[in-house]
Amino acid sequence: MLKIDLTSAAGFLPDDWFSSREAGLAQARTMLRDHSGPGGDFTGWVRLPEEYDREEFARIQAAAEKIRSDSQVLVVVGIGGSYLGARAVIELMGSADHRLARNAPEIFFAGNGLSTDALCELIDYLKDKDFSVNVISKSGTTTEPAVAFRIFKALLEERYGREGARGRIYATTDARKGALKGLADSEGYETFVVPDAVGGRYSVLTAVGLLPIAAAGIDAAALMEGAREAMEALDVPGADNPAWQYAAARNALYGAGKAIELLVGYEPSFRFFAEWWKQLYGESEGKEGRGLFPASVEFTADLHSMGQYIQQGARILMETVVRFRTSRRELLVPHDPDNVDGLNFLSGKSLQFVAEQAMRGTLLAHVDGGVPNLVVEAEARDERTIGQLIYFFEYACGLSGYLLGVNPFDQPGVEAYKQNMFALLGKPGFEARRAELELRL
Amino acid sequence: MLKIDLTSAAGFLPDDWFSSREAGLAQARTMLRDHSGPGGDFTGWVRLPEEYDREEFARIQAAAEKIRSDSQVLVVVGIGGSYLGARAVIELMGSADHRLARNAPEIFFAGNGLSTDALCELIDYLKDKDFSVNVISKSGTTTEPAVAFRIFKALLEERYGREGARGRIYATTDARKGALKGLADSEGYETFVVPDAVGGRYSVLTAVGLLPIAAAGIDAAALMEGAREAMEALDVPGADNPAWQYAAARNALYGAGKAIELLVGYEPSFRFFAEWWKQLYGESEGKEGRGLFPASVEFTADLHSMGQYIQQGARILMETVVRFRTSRRELLVPHDPDNVDGLNFLSGKSLQFVAEQAMRGTLLAHVDGGVPNLVVEAEARDERTIGQLIYFFEYACGLSGYLLGVNPFDQPGVEAYKQNMFALLGKPGFEARRAELELRL
Repeated sequence: MLKIDLTSAAGFLPDDWFSSREAGLAQARTMLRDHSGPGGDFTGWVRLPEEYDREEFARIQAAAEKIRSDSQVLVVVGIGGSYLGARAVIELMGSADHRLARNAPEIFFAGNGLSTDALCELIDYLKDKDFSVNVISKSGTTTEPAVAFRIFKALLEERYGREGARGRIYATTDARKGALKGLADSEGYETFVVPDAVGGRYSVLTAVGLLPIAAAGIDAAALMEGAREAMEALDVPGADNPAWQYAAARNALYGAGKAIELLVGYEPSFRFFAEWWKQLYGESEGKEGRGLFPASVEFTADLHSMGQYIQQGARILMETVVRFRTSRRELLVPHDPDNVDGLNFLSGKSLQFVAEQAMRGTLLAHVDGGVPNLVVEAEARDERTIGQLIYFFEYACGLSGYLLGVNPFDQPGVEAYKQNMFALLGKPGFEARRAELELRL
Repeated sequence: MLKIDLTSAAGFLPDDWFSSREAGLAQARTMLRDHSGPGGDFTGWVRLPEEYDREEFARIQAAAEKIRSDSQVLVVVGIGGSYLGARAVIELMGSADHRLARNAPEIFFAGNGLSTDALCELIDYLKDKDFSVNVISKSGTTTEPAVAFRIFKALLEERYGREGARGRIYATTDARKGALKGLADSEGYETFVVPDAVGGRYSVLTAVGLLPIAAAGIDAAALMEGAREAMEALDVPGADNPAWQYAAARNALYGAGKAIELLVGYEPSFRFFAEWWKQLYGESEGKEGRGLFPASVEFTADLHSMGQYIQQGARILMETVVRFRTSRRELLVPHDPDNVDGLNFLSGKSLQFVAEQAMRGTLLAHVDGGVPNLVVEAEARDERTIGQLIYFFEYACGLSGYLLGVNPFDQPGVEAYKQNMFALLGKPGFEARRAELELRL
């Protein structure tokens, strides 16, 4: 199981950082277990790694196999929690540079924005490739994925005929109601479920995340098994529980005036895992004028861009480092007889060793600069470990949100831009609001 | 020329936000022009778009042509300012997804981190491809690029022989001294100059950025021409100067308690331009315990992840939106006879129109939520406009740093991790520090 090392935060935490929060954590644990806290209707993710639908899981694996057999590309249409988890896992298991990842089929994420040029590029790319579409939307009416789905559905029908298209569209949506569910039933698409009790940002271990992940050739069962291990380990109350430690420490640091939490990775492939984490924490805690602002950096690259600010800028930062103990491969620093760069003291050492010392040196430097560091220690960049990481961050987020005193499972602020957008787009029923907004603009 | 629209920030700015800063801006302008302010030795970028070395520029174009003729891949080895500018421009002109960009040659950035797996993936990828290397380092001794260069140099020599490798290595480095310059001279590599008077984060319009940019098939002359237009326009003092407006407004908002500036793009391809901007502002202003923390988001995607925090989290945010007025292509929302998703009120409208209303609606929503928005209005996603944007942000950063009262051209905090890393790596001469650090760890 993963661990958390608080050594580099100790000097910034008050003596009672844990003891004063222990009762609150115990209460949060109960609320998560019993679904009895604020937002309890959306805590279906808590037991998910054990209680998931095995029959659906088998259908996911079979659909993934079919996609792998008949498609060069899988287009995943979804926004927010409907794509971030899958993208996070697929990149972290593969590469941030999709030219290097060589997934078969290649996975593209679309319908998560409104860029004309980005969508046109993908349409061009698909011209000479067999592809399938996984459309992911609880309601089927969210603007970005709905518009993209109209386009890709039309492309599929043009290419394969209406009947052929039906066999290449997979709909992950509400179990019973909604626009997409209705369409899927009438067209006969294979469907998977976005459970009612699991919000978007907690949905990566449902069909929402698992179908694209499995289609990319990743072992979804091992991912679930890692999550299940974490679920069991993190259910044990007390000061040794890494999720309790993380939730308490970040809450204490927030209370001590830190305003920003930087998630730090040392692998380029970690970038979108950090994006997933930003939604998880930002959307769960950023409300009622509160919450640590979630940001992320990639080290050592960003030590040469954001490093100056972290070392000496406004002292409102804390960092959470996710460290993988091992690399998959080994690479040794070559010897240079001329020692042009003066680095022969590294000759024959592994790059992993160099990275390790960079991380240790950075921890000390940032502590000296006034930035507390929490270190999440994970084993390897594999499915089981990533499953642990996912559940760890989800569970700690639930605890942390309850410690903060907010409902970690709602997102009332996401509606504001949508309502304005609908009005400005001329949606029937929004005429009064439209007039009012146009006046302001 | 680009403009800045302050409408959505007006309600958050004190009445004297500009007038009280006008004298400071005038003084900053003089210091930048005369190189007479703090860090004045590093203000060679101010007149660069007009006074660059034409002979070297022609050599850059010729080298780019040679690379395009004999290489399927160009590996750019550099860290921080030695890669971010080029990557920003290449992605913004192309695509954030390199599978879609189809640059010929393909460009890869390496030596900007210490990930074993990422480096191994690239080495594998190069196995069956002709490639060249552009190594970019003022000194030639920075650990990350130096280690990577050892590896790629050895690969080239193995593949093409020592003589063949010489014709495929391009060194962008100090004009006279340093480890890389010495090696390049003795081996006979073609060299380009990292000017003494231009710091890394301001170097994209020197050979540092221009060689990879030109090799990617981007019109470097048009980029320089855009920058020159901005240079002339922004040299005119007064309240209509967009750089003066931006510098004054962000300084006033910082003074009013905002702690984080979010750079907002609506194109996925904008992601690394935001990373370049983060280095520019974070490294220039994040010192002496001060400075807005620079972060970035991609809309509308991140309205479904960070949108909740922005709308209702801690009220310490301001946003700067970079908006491109036009798309390159046009895409219409298809009509659906069944109107399953209820979006037929958009049928036949362009996706660009939908994006435009999303942006307008978001501006109003965020203002209502207490987040001031500045909008930088750029024409098109082309070289000339991007040249304008680069110079605009550079020049405004110089002004802004002087308004803040810091030296915007040093980065004293970047050394801390390096010194620790050297000690922990066992570099000769760091023995005492090593012992001390190992005790702490």
